[in-house]
Amino acid sequence: MGGGTGSFTVLSGLKKYDDVELTAIVSMADDGGSTGILRDEYGVLPPGDIRQCLVALSETSDLMRELFNFRFSEGGLKGHNFGNLFISAIEKITGDFNKSLDMISEVLKVRGLVIPVTLDKVRLVAELKNGKKLYGEGDISDYQMISRFGVKKIYFDKKAKANPKAIKAIKEADLIVVGPGSFYSSLIPNFLVDGVSRAVISSKAKKVFVCNIMNKYGHTDNFTVQDFVDRMEKFIKPKVFDFVIYNNTIPLKALLKKYIDEGEPVLFDKARKISGRKFIGADLLSKTNPKKQKGDILKNRALIRHDQNKLAEIIMKI
Amino acid sequence: MGGGTGSFTVLSGLKKYDDVELTAIVSMADDGGSTGILRDEYGVLPPGDIRQCLVALSETSDLMRELFNFRFSEGGLKGHNFGNLFISAIEKITGDFNKSLDMISEVLKVRGLVIPVTLDKVRLVAELKNGKKLYGEGDISDYQMISRFGVKKIYFDKKAKANPKAIKAIKEADLIVVGPGSFYSSLIPNFLVDGVSRAVISSKAKKVFVCNIMNKYGHTDNFTVQDFVDRMEKFIKPKVFDFVIYNNTIPLKALLKKYIDEGEPVLFDKARKISGRKFIGADLLSKTNPKKQKGDILKNRALIRHDQNKLAEIIMKI
Repeated sequence: MGGGTGSFTVLSGLKKYDDVELTAIVSMADDGGSTGILRDEYGVLPPGDIRQCLVALSETSDLMRELFNFRFSEGGLKGHNFGNLFISAIEKITGDFNKSLDMISEVLKVRGLVIPVTLDKVRLVAELKNGKKLYGEGDISDYQMISRFGVKKIYFDKKAKANPKAIKAIKEADLIVVGPGSFYSSLIPNFLVDGVSRAVISSKAKKVFVCNIMNKYGHTDNFTVQDFVDRMEKFIKPKVFDFVIYNNTIPLKALLKKYIDEGEPVLFDKARKISGRKFIGADLLSKTNPKKQKGDILKNRALIRHDQNKLAEIIMKI
Repeated sequence: MGGGTGSFTVLSGLKKYDDVELTAIVSMADDGGSTGILRDEYGVLPPGDIRQCLVALSETSDLMRELFNFRFSEGGLKGHNFGNLFISAIEKITGDFNKSLDMISEVLKVRGLVIPVTLDKVRLVAELKNGKKLYGEGDISDYQMISRFGVKKIYFDKKAKANPKAIKAIKEADLIVVGPGSFYSSLIPNFLVDGVSRAVISSKAKKVFVCNIMNKYGHTDNFTVQDFVDRMEKFIKPKVFDFVIYNNTIPLKALLKKYIDEGEPVLFDKARKISGRKFIGADLLSKTNPKKQKGDILKNRALIRHDQNKLAEIIMKI
């Protein structure tokens, strides 16, 4: 459960194990970049996070996967992602987001399921402690405002019903992995959807939280691993997670420098003991650099991120 | 051989016969509408006519075919055709137009081959009798200018080498069908490519010309069927066609009214005898209306057009 790059990493790693049936439950709160433009101009559901999960689970050619992640870097289509256009075009034709998923799953030869957590068109609202409200992931991602005043409450602009397929998958799962991902825009929005927390709580699955490597100013200022878990569980239920996986290695200084405006590494607080669950620390850092895509509207795609293989190995051991 | 709607009709009709191996040779002079924007902004080869042929030969679901013909009707993507974006995105990624064709052929489950007549990026030039030159299909399609002064010469802005695959297909064909299609923008440009006329002449195939139903002011003013054949053959070789198929029924007045700015029906000149080839006249009019697509930049997509089944039946008899 998550959305965006974090889910891509988890799914890409787990896909390499033959005996795993994968289902991605994807947050539908994204409204930045190409996705935001498509939502605004065409009234479609946000395709971006869904696409990332589909590509992660794809077993088609590298070229086809590259095509679905391709961004136009110039001209009138600048910043638009091809996969997003694919999903949105089918939704415009059929009026049915599920049809888009079926079709793109066929084209990409997706192994597993990708399920939007809700099919309602909702927008994230962050109410700050000074009373001001921020609308949409774009504004909420802007740390300056949110950092100065702090978030008092986060919710959707209207009630979001859970996608029945998502509830079914959660209930039938053997293992539920939440995260990594942006706290307010990828993780929390899953649990703001009506019925999702309840389904997770009642599921017999082992519950695993994968903690982010880096904090984000305004969202998770100086969070420790334990803080992260506490805040996540506020939206679900205290001590819902049986396992917490976290990175215990400090990233290279050169990379940290690039995050100077974004946040510090998430540290494990050795002094704080929490009983009843297992914390698993390991060196989870990816040593490879992500390919910088020309034409990307969003500035920072994670440079410091999880190594998909190391992460998958730990999850599989659980 | 042709390009655009005419080829779509011929291919769609012939596809219904199981024992036919189809190859479309497609003109690469298109630079109007969505195709023109993609050429200008991304420097790609023109995808529009190619796409129409691919969709015609596609044996995938109706929804997938609809997707590839889908046009965005609003917002920043207005007028863009999804299939064109698909082809151009792959060309941008790989730098290889053939790769686009292979991939789209796979996705669309294309039965047969679609071959660009040339892979050189060329632009059509029409030199008028007053010395003025018109560049590109867009300007050349504008009948006012061309109608007033008449075309003296038509050529590419630079030499275009034939695609070896096109030459091979022409040489190995049992039957070559040329047309229907826009005279200057879909038909002639095939024969302006170096080596194509020679290949057609030397091919042992029976050669069939399918004459347009309607004339176009400035391009084919008051052409009879025989004039059409004469002018076409000027670019290949006199009497190259063994068969000429033409429509012998006058379209409904209500439809002709819509063509008042475009042209008159092409009539067969009964007084003019031409020996050495067979003229086949029949009622070839389509009785169904084409679906008007929202967001199409180009104003008139053929309302008066060939019935694909009637046309295919005659071709198959030959």
